[in-house]
Amino acid sequence: MISVIKIGGNVIDDEKNLARFLDQLGGFPGKKILVHGGGKLATELSSRLGISTTMIDGRRVTDGETLKVAVMTYAGWINKTIVASLNSRGCTAIGLCGADGNVITAKKREGEIDFGFVGDPAAETVNTALLLGLLEAQLTPVIAPITHDGNGQLLNTNADTMAAVIAASLAQETDVQLIYCFEKNGVLKDVAAEDSLIATMDRALFSSLKNDGTIHKGMLPKLTAGFMARTSGVSRVVIGHAERLPELLKETNYCTTLEP
Amino acid sequence: MISVIKIGGNVIDDEKNLARFLDQLGGFPGKKILVHGGGKLATELSSRLGISTTMIDGRRVTDGETLKVAVMTYAGWINKTIVASLNSRGCTAIGLCGADGNVITAKKREGEIDFGFVGDPAAETVNTALLLGLLEAQLTPVIAPITHDGNGQLLNTNADTMAAVIAASLAQETDVQLIYCFEKNGVLKDVAAEDSLIATMDRALFSSLKNDGTIHKGMLPKLTAGFMARTSGVSRVVIGHAERLPELLKETNYCTTLEP
Repeated sequence: MISVIKIGGNVIDDEKNLARFLDQLGGFPGKKILVHGGGKLATELSSRLGISTTMIDGRRVTDGETLKVAVMTYAGWINKTIVASLNSRGCTAIGLCGADGNVITAKKREGEIDFGFVGDPAAETVNTALLLGLLEAQLTPVIAPITHDGNGQLLNTNADTMAAVIAASLAQETDVQLIYCFEKNGVLKDVAAEDSLIATMDRALFSSLKNDGTIHKGMLPKLTAGFMARTSGVSRVVIGHAERLPELLKETNYCTTLEP
Repeated sequence: MISVIKIGGNVIDDEKNLARFLDQLGGFPGKKILVHGGGKLATELSSRLGISTTMIDGRRVTDGETLKVAVMTYAGWINKTIVASLNSRGCTAIGLCGADGNVITAKKREGEIDFGFVGDPAAETVNTALLLGLLEAQLTPVIAPITHDGNGQLLNTNADTMAAVIAASLAQETDVQLIYCFEKNGVLKDVAAEDSLIATMDRALFSSLKNDGTIHKGMLPKLTAGFMARTSGVSRVVIGHAERLPELLKETNYCTTLEP
């Protein structure tokens, strides 16, 4: 069983939370791949450099300067500090972005809205042989949300989608679970009430909660990606609190489990 | 034969020179590792962020903010743009810093002058098994001049030294050559006269040229590192012009060859 684990910016931005998360991840002996999001460092750096950040539907519009900031912060500082931290915990990690070893190639997004240098990856572009080889060599890949188009262009990419695409690809070859970790216990009926956790969600429930507005913007790409992975053969897809990583990696009901 | 090739900031900073260099490197079919320096991007970014840069003996003093800038630019933007460019040329590259897969662990420099977060790597810390495995898998490692101390701390590291330490380590297991590429034809008796090339340099000549001041600051770490590699079993160590990479990779006299 390979576990693909995704952490978002809220975990990365809090030093103490990140340290606890990495303790737990480093202590988990199974084969694992960490996909990390960005966090506020990119926004902070952009602001210090006088680069304005435009968001459309929860996605950053990426011009040339913003791409540079994203690559520097995600594939640079965040990725390498996580790698160095995991190594110090005895978990040998190797940091990658999608360009490294052609791990994930993406297609620049086309459409009515120009998101700039943003890429959408497809499962069939994942270099599973490289990931499986690294896992076999007892390494933990730590993947930043940057891809490339195969023609030399780096692209900003949604980390939830990357995690799902990696899990879906590996699922064609072996047993895979996908664990989304964030700052909530899972998908909540009422975002203000942690006890309103939805333990199991299928596509019908997702549709109805999407239509009535219960599921807000930031959760949409995560759930869409999660269902894609589940349908593509990933045996378990859960969304839960980063603090509970050890439980999330095993059977637990204290999270939202996606069912096709 | 494995070729460890180092390019400096002067090649990286010029888009056209870098493109030509990557064309030549990508077209070379042998096993190769690229180690790259920093260039002016870090200085530019520091300046835009209002971080002052202090240099002592040609080495950057690295405080916390400067380290962040170094990691972001070297291991982030420069490393990933080189990787994406090589991939687009059909040469599958994988970007690493010293922390990735524990490729190179370094010791924070101690001494009279406090250089801050600067690390000196030792040959025995190189994870040669990982590098040989990546090369065996037809990947070209592209290594940024950032290491870690094994306790979670990233460290700024001289790229010339990293290239030499990598070459020296691999030389314990297989045949290795070390190629330093920069903006000159080699070590020059008169830095203003390209035809004053010193074709062969041994330690005695190095000492005398160092003592009479012919060899200036920037060349000292390169030559010291190069001689260390040569003495440690690297079969060929040359310093030459980045434009001549194809020749430098084969026998040529149009460069400076170091002899023990």
